[in-house]
Amino acid sequence: VTGFVTATAVTARGDGATYDVTLDPLWTVAERPNGGYLLAVLARAAVEAAAAVGADHPHPLAASGHYLAAPVSGPADVVTEVLRTGRTASQLRARLVQDGRTCVEALLTVGRLHPDAEPWWSDATPVDLPPEDACVLLPADRPGRPYRVSILDVVHERLDPAVLGSAEGRPSGDAEVRGWLRFADGHEPDPLSLLFVLDALPPATFELGPMGWVPTLELTAYVRAVPAPGPLRVRQRARLVQSGFVDERCEVWDSRGRLVGQATQFASLRVPEGQLPAPRRGPAG
Amino acid sequence: VTGFVTATAVTARGDGATYDVTLDPLWTVAERPNGGYLLAVLARAAVEAAAAVGADHPHPLAASGHYLAAPVSGPADVVTEVLRTGRTASQLRARLVQDGRTCVEALLTVGRLHPDAEPWWSDATPVDLPPEDACVLLPADRPGRPYRVSILDVVHERLDPAVLGSAEGRPSGDAEVRGWLRFADGHEPDPLSLLFVLDALPPATFELGPMGWVPTLELTAYVRAVPAPGPLRVRQRARLVQSGFVDERCEVWDSRGRLVGQATQFASLRVPEGQLPAPRRGPAG
Repeated sequence: VTGFVTATAVTARGDGATYDVTLDPLWTVAERPNGGYLLAVLARAAVEAAAAVGADHPHPLAASGHYLAAPVSGPADVVTEVLRTGRTASQLRARLVQDGRTCVEALLTVGRLHPDAEPWWSDATPVDLPPEDACVLLPADRPGRPYRVSILDVVHERLDPAVLGSAEGRPSGDAEVRGWLRFADGHEPDPLSLLFVLDALPPATFELGPMGWVPTLELTAYVRAVPAPGPLRVRQRARLVQSGFVDERCEVWDSRGRLVGQATQFASLRVPEGQLPAPRRGPAG
Repeated sequence: VTGFVTATAVTARGDGATYDVTLDPLWTVAERPNGGYLLAVLARAAVEAAAAVGADHPHPLAASGHYLAAPVSGPADVVTEVLRTGRTASQLRARLVQDGRTCVEALLTVGRLHPDAEPWWSDATPVDLPPEDACVLLPADRPGRPYRVSILDVVHERLDPAVLGSAEGRPSGDAEVRGWLRFADGHEPDPLSLLFVLDALPPATFELGPMGWVPTLELTAYVRAVPAPGPLRVRQRARLVQSGFVDERCEVWDSRGRLVGQATQFASLRVPEGQLPAPRRGPAG
């Protein structure tokens, strides 16, 4: 298993702006690098680029990635540009380029998170979950699924059984997935890895019925704190499926119950005509 | 009053990439152009740039703006680059440049929204509000406030009295503002103007006590439908105030009760030391 630090390693080219990366074949879904993983690779390069201009901003605070083309595993470049440096935060652009083509372009705010930060105000109660050992470990391979979810070899995702009805043909009808997450190699969560965690669960549309591929167009993630060691609680929820597009909101809490990451993404739904069930509305939210 | 269409007008420079704009002095808070207004200006240029390369994508679907420096009212340039054109969506970068300095850089996905789109699945019940005439119209000038909220001359914002305790020194203690919104000149909401609406309410921290200036670092907005004519319902809510940063989530429903816009923003809080009340937690969410 290639751990998070190795899979997101960047090597400065020497021009102060370009970084060599190797996209790892394990950090993929259906052989395509996962979107949150790519955002973490871009953020790793961004914090290095900020350090290269003297900014003490080792953590991503906010990152917006727009997905233009799916890269393949293997070598790629990250091209960075420092847009602004400030006292508490710096802002950068980072682009993932492969074979001369920009696959992902991101804008990032980086800064320094303090390990002992506590909420001044919050309404973010951790998502309610059964105990970890009462949840169901997702497999990378599943009979009848024509592709491999290789990221499930690098993270252990244990989902609440209540959101796993679709695996048995009885989807819950609610656009929410939730569960526990740990890195398979024992890597404890850190701020950079939260960018991956915020896009690691199955699509929130999982329990609405067969929906096909849900490619991300845009993913915005906020990292709010240095996560404590231990398992993470993750909830991903959609608000509206309409006209072939869906939003998904993700929240991550650490083992101390603190909200450490938030994300929203905008994805398209590629569902073959006729495969869509009749329109319906979900429960009032 | 300068209406939305005039205030966001862009004029092609002729190179297919650059647009002249004039930032309107009325679309400001404390004489600084509003962040959602600036995102709308960038999106106006982006849909024009998409049209210039033959894409039938007149509406913003997703836009992420990162705020680097506050521009002033007056002339500025928008520099666009088409990153990808596709069948259902195109993606672009747009930068607002004033006096040679990039003030806002944004990544945008544009496409075409269909006026009769209905949810296939949704849990987005419209925010509950008292009738419009039982809500309180916000004034651009308020005794004791040292700056002018000029955008309140171009939009009529009627807030739920329950979130206006702070005006009388009795803040609710909840990080939510909500109310009705209409353009003052009778302009009916359209997809582009939702980018402004999604950042038009007072900060969600309004009812937590005196918080000072809340400058936006990042604003991501999704436009989900062509809004029906009539007043808009808007709710803005924070999840976590910590370490000098706050997230704010905004949702907009049209007069037919459809969710038409969603946004999230990441802002810093500039509160003078000693002015912060003791740490506390909000109600469980």
